Amino acid sequence: MTTIKAICKQAKSAALQLAQLSEADKNQLLLAMATQLEADTALILAGNAKDMAAGREKQLADAMLDRLLLTEERIKSLANAVRAIAALPDPVGQIRQMAPRPNGIQVGKMRIPLGVIAMIYEARPNVTADAGALCLKSGNAVILRGGREALNSSLAIAASLHKAMETQGINPAAISVIPDPDRALLLELLQQKDSVDLVIPRGGEGLIHFVSDHSKIPVIQHYKGICHLYVDKAADLDKAMALLLNGKTQRPGVCNALETLLVHQDIAPQFLALASAAFEEKQVEVFACDLSLPYFAQASKADEAQFDTEYLRLAISVKTVASYDEAVAHIQRHSSGHTEVICTQDLSTAQRFLKQINSAVVMVNASSRFSDGGELGLGAEIGISTSKLHAYGPMGLESLTTEKYIVIGDGQTR
Amino acid sequence: MTTIKAICKQAKSAALQLAQLSEADKNQLLLAMATQLEADTALILAGNAKDMAAGREKQLADAMLDRLLLTEERIKSLANAVRAIAALPDPVGQIRQMAPRPNGIQVGKMRIPLGVIAMIYEARPNVTADAGALCLKSGNAVILRGGREALNSSLAIAASLHKAMETQGINPAAISVIPDPDRALLLELLQQKDSVDLVIPRGGEGLIHFVSDHSKIPVIQHYKGICHLYVDKAADLDKAMALLLNGKTQRPGVCNALETLLVHQDIAPQFLALASAAFEEKQVEVFACDLSLPYFAQASKADEAQFDTEYLRLAISVKTVASYDEAVAHIQRHSSGHTEVICTQDLSTAQRFLKQINSAVVMVNASSRFSDGGELGLGAEIGISTSKLHAYGPMGLESLTTEKYIVIGDGQTR
Repeated sequence: MTTIKAICKQAKSAALQLAQLSEADKNQLLLAMATQLEADTALILAGNAKDMAAGREKQLADAMLDRLLLTEERIKSLANAVRAIAALPDPVGQIRQMAPRPNGIQVGKMRIPLGVIAMIYEARPNVTADAGALCLKSGNAVILRGGREALNSSLAIAASLHKAMETQGINPAAISVIPDPDRALLLELLQQKDSVDLVIPRGGEGLIHFVSDHSKIPVIQHYKGICHLYVDKAADLDKAMALLLNGKTQRPGVCNALETLLVHQDIAPQFLALASAAFEEKQVEVFACDLSLPYFAQASKADEAQFDTEYLRLAISVKTVASYDEAVAHIQRHSSGHTEVICTQDLSTAQRFLKQINSAVVMVNASSRFSDGGELGLGAEIGISTSKLHAYGPMGLESLTTEKYIVIGDGQTR
Repeated sequence: MTTIKAICKQAKSAALQLAQLSEADKNQLLLAMATQLEADTALILAGNAKDMAAGREKQLADAMLDRLLLTEERIKSLANAVRAIAALPDPVGQIRQMAPRPNGIQVGKMRIPLGVIAMIYEARPNVTADAGALCLKSGNAVILRGGREALNSSLAIAASLHKAMETQGINPAAISVIPDPDRALLLELLQQKDSVDLVIPRGGEGLIHFVSDHSKIPVIQHYKGICHLYVDKAADLDKAMALLLNGKTQRPGVCNALETLLVHQDIAPQFLALASAAFEEKQVEVFACDLSLPYFAQASKADEAQFDTEYLRLAISVKTVASYDEAVAHIQRHSSGHTEVICTQDLSTAQRFLKQINSAVVMVNASSRFSDGGELGLGAEIGISTSKLHAYGPMGLESLTTEKYIVIGDGQTR
């Protein structure tokens, strides 16, 4: 148990050094890390081979084995992701709103790292390099606690990163891997509020609930994405069909895929006829409200509870609404706070929707699939928050920082 | 128990209405609330009289009775504080960084209310009006859970505010007072994470620890203020004396008062001689390190643990340091993250301090007593955060809001 505490304390100490690095120093460090990852390809593949063998023995699902698998090409793209993070602008040290007060003191805010971030994740070895690079670029130390399935891969990646850090004079405790994915140790980690500033869990709802329920440290929460598309009576039906199919079928297993279609009753006859044909072609299973059911040859009846379902597959809930207000009320009741889309050509309706819906990402005439750090222009994403505190929506480098006040006087007193 | 849940749900529903109000609507509401408070002076004084009688019977300390007491003048100043909040700029609806992505979608951020804020406080009836006004101005509903000692005063103030809200068509659940300060009900309140977005405890360390330890809702933490003044070897000694005396003696019982003086050894002989005379005159009790002890006629020896003490009275810890770096290391070890001050005329040293120290407020040549929402220009303060998540330092209206992403497209898909 003392080991976890010691790891956290060393990370806190390493964070003090990182917070003082210049952007140039940090970029040089990240580029060295990328080069080292490529140089250590054989060692990393050897670690990964152990995980793959154990995974096959445990008969992990094919999708999981694929997430776990590293290849020379995948290591190359890991390294390139680290290079891309080096190229992002550094938020640390930015000063804003510097202004004098009546007594002559100057007051402003300066952006600073959070300190130590703990990442809790499952069987994705790439997170080790990604999260390490994002945290270092924003001046934070990171403690990585991945799943048992990817442990050897993660340790090999971390060992490679440590080599690069040592050549740059950086305390390797700035990227620490918890070497034992035991739950008791995770619980111990979640108690270290004196040294860890933020916990970011990435994975299934079970993991996130476990972390939230047991953490004494603030947690970024992202439970699920029940994303809505509301097709307004003033919608352009071609655009609406494009948004619907892209949102539901382009990659149904991710959190920014659509789960619910709301249609205004005035255009329901036309639009649901189109949707029905398209769903049949794409083999999308439909759960429809009473008013929508007649438009589908094959659909199950959706009761109210159905609208709280995140399918993560080719299935969708469909509801016909009598008005814009009914659509908004439905979203407010069933939203998971992730992403909601309106399709309308009416400017007033679009503006009302942008103002009234307070999910993390609110869109007009654009696909919910754009709700992603890369697509929204953050450069890289360390997670997505569906709770409003600290960060809301896709989280980039700025979300790993905070602001302190700075005051410059000339001896003023109160 | 169901009552607490019902109060929270009603507050959440009221918050949806508040989030849509224009700044003009909110200002009109606050001005009506101020007028109503003055009109209800007699009713509020009657409620307060009950609390005062009970407080005297319970033999509350004089300082506590004074905090509890309302007078016609104090009610007038409560009303004026609400008017001052009406005059502050509204952060809600502000849009920033709206910019096109390569595919033509426009992406930006819009500031929105958090939703429902729970204030947990002790025997200060003025918080009922202050916090109510700050939360409403920022579009949030608020649940107020004050101490038993001020309950009748709080209920009378809330009843007055509700009258004004009703004339403006605002759901009175937007300001809810928990009518029973039972701890079991507080525990129940701290579980309502589905309807409450943020908990702000204001009071002693015991209350804040209790709230943090039991809350399933994010909590703004402010334990204590161990504020440091470091007098550098390049300090202007007159300015340093002014900052020291103002910081320690102007109002020693508050969290932005100084608790520790660090002095560079090169100027310790001169400066500590001045400080010693001044402390004697002002009757400040001194706890000094071995190197500092000889300068004081009457001082106790300070061991390392002494430097973690928040005195909140006319007492101070004093340490002589061999270098700037030793001062920074001492602060990093003992700081509570509140406010630290350097006194120096050396620009490079000042810049290093501003960068290296990551407390919520970092000052050069200015009194720690300026570390306050009003003095820093926030207009009003709902609390102060010494944890880095969401808000750090004095919290104004902006701290009661968050940002969502908004996306405007023309049918783009991925």
